[in-house]
Amino acid sequence: MATLCRPAIAVPEHIITREQTLELARTLHADHPQLPLALRLIANTGVQTRHLVQPIEDTLKHPGFTARNARYEIEAKARVPEVILRALDHAELTARDIDMIAYVSCTGFMMPSMTAWLINTMDFRSETRQLPIAQLGCAAGGAALNRAHDFCNAYPGANVLIVACEFCSLCYQPTDLGVGNLLSNGLFGDAIACAVVRGEGGVGVRLEQNGSHLVPDTEEWISYGVRDTGFHFMLDKRVPGTMAMLAPAMRAMAEPHDWDVSGLDFYIVHAGGPRILDDLCKYLDLPPEMFRYSRATLTERGNIASAVIFDALERLFLDGGAEDAARGVIAGFGPGITAEIALGTWTEPGRATGREGLRTVGLPA
Amino acid sequence: MATLCRPAIAVPEHIITREQTLELARTLHADHPQLPLALRLIANTGVQTRHLVQPIEDTLKHPGFTARNARYEIEAKARVPEVILRALDHAELTARDIDMIAYVSCTGFMMPSMTAWLINTMDFRSETRQLPIAQLGCAAGGAALNRAHDFCNAYPGANVLIVACEFCSLCYQPTDLGVGNLLSNGLFGDAIACAVVRGEGGVGVRLEQNGSHLVPDTEEWISYGVRDTGFHFMLDKRVPGTMAMLAPAMRAMAEPHDWDVSGLDFYIVHAGGPRILDDLCKYLDLPPEMFRYSRATLTERGNIASAVIFDALERLFLDGGAEDAARGVIAGFGPGITAEIALGTWTEPGRATGREGLRTVGLPA
Repeated sequence: MATLCRPAIAVPEHIITREQTLELARTLHADHPQLPLALRLIANTGVQTRHLVQPIEDTLKHPGFTARNARYEIEAKARVPEVILRALDHAELTARDIDMIAYVSCTGFMMPSMTAWLINTMDFRSETRQLPIAQLGCAAGGAALNRAHDFCNAYPGANVLIVACEFCSLCYQPTDLGVGNLLSNGLFGDAIACAVVRGEGGVGVRLEQNGSHLVPDTEEWISYGVRDTGFHFMLDKRVPGTMAMLAPAMRAMAEPHDWDVSGLDFYIVHAGGPRILDDLCKYLDLPPEMFRYSRATLTERGNIASAVIFDALERLFLDGGAEDAARGVIAGFGPGITAEIALGTWTEPGRATGREGLRTVGLPA
Repeated sequence: MATLCRPAIAVPEHIITREQTLELARTLHADHPQLPLALRLIANTGVQTRHLVQPIEDTLKHPGFTARNARYEIEAKARVPEVILRALDHAELTARDIDMIAYVSCTGFMMPSMTAWLINTMDFRSETRQLPIAQLGCAAGGAALNRAHDFCNAYPGANVLIVACEFCSLCYQPTDLGVGNLLSNGLFGDAIACAVVRGEGGVGVRLEQNGSHLVPDTEEWISYGVRDTGFHFMLDKRVPGTMAMLAPAMRAMAEPHDWDVSGLDFYIVHAGGPRILDDLCKYLDLPPEMFRYSRATLTERGNIASAVIFDALERLFLDGGAEDAARGVIAGFGPGITAEIALGTWTEPGRATGREGLRTVGLPA
């Protein structure tokens, strides 16, 4: 059975606070007729700090898509390897043990993918499968996890490294002035998350089942305009209400597994914005603290796209993990609108071995 | 066991011949110091005709990346569904039977991916997994096939639809004047290929084993420059010699399966250019006719990127298929430099039943 091990996270050194964000919006968009609404929306995100790969003054410039994408490549190559090494360490594996690298990122585009550079640079085997995904946005972390799970189901004992590298600040578009754009400018942050799915062994979330759901006819709700100036993020105002459709999808996925999605022990979900977390409380009939890890990610780092679920999971690890066999869900949401959902149980072999020990001497397990 | 069923192919209605290509090169680059070399290289490709989504006069214009990518989306939405329906028909399945769509394309970029539009438009289930891959270039057809195989290994009975949609002409860059660019302008063509990997049943190539290989330190040999003007294809002059490294990788992958890669019954490989096919003959010690399907694809359609292997396989089907249990290899090559290799046997359940019948009456099978 495949186990998602403890993630490693890195956030860049440049920080922008909520106050700086609001002040910038006031300064840059002083004449914008909907400035008050934008300020209210930004304040309502609850985001307190975000991290950026460049100082804010450079972030606000748009030097063209050529320079932006070159910056993406430079920053990714400079920052990703260290995070991978920590994730491998958490999984007690080396690069030689990895059979597939799923690299997900929607904020830069490279061909060959970063996977080729990583294999060449970091002692991965030449036979390592490359799975670069650029077009699933914030759902790509969940997709990488689920495809890693599938791969381990196909080849028991295989190990998959997941890399989510999101430099959302490199998609800042100063001329996009819709309210959704102004909100996005105050919502997204930069981060790198890496995690290993071990086919055998490992401490973390044992993956039991995974599923995908596309909400019909919502393609336009979250999308990129692909233009001479790069990727333009477009957000429809209906997006915050998406949980009305995705909560039932989560429930429907858990039911055939005989799990009640409202009765799980931990919830690691995409913190796209505050409404997503509020609505999951409502639709799944859960108290807000069940989403505390996702909320903390949003508050401290903003929406870090495909990296969110790993950052939230790392907080569960830092919190001491869960009870052995505790049941949980990990769900990424993104454009499509797509949900990538995984069900799993907390596993710690040492603890499990203890139970086995009880069994062998005839005590109730 | 998963079976790759008969592909469906579509090529657009606008055709450019070898003579037109050479004449265009002479006209557009009359003053180019390396024109004679470029003409010789183009002539040596053996490409006789290529298909384009737009008339040649529109192809030669560069209206900007915004317009180019919008054209990609329009053409993909107009042309892909019909090809999918034929591929489903070949597999004797409907859209409802498909569990994952692997959509590969390196010549346009969309988020949400085309997978979301296809699911919404073509009666696929909302639970269909989306696997869009944009960064593996010509190797992505092989990657889609291999990940489809993995998925069916993980979930026996699952079915995966592969869509390779390549409009290479939309990446024409009139200001790129290196010899490698002029050659590319005479080499690549547009095409769509779809095929289903059936988890159970089906006529075609039963997939037995798959593997990936990255040739160390060749990232720069085939790459995209990602710029304000879109994707700029960059081809190093060392690329045609790549089979010196990839033929041994194919051999090494087949050996643990107890197959001699020089002794197989059919070869469906990426026809990146003529030298690839010539060198495979040399390094695998095979006569040229073993690569006749790939050669025909190259001659009639040019290098159609990730669609090549499916177009070549369709020619094997049109040729009557192979003997039952005939052994073959399918290999995509692309940036990385990456090879995605699959080993499989020809399977026709009817025929197999015939053999079984012989066995039951005690005759030699």
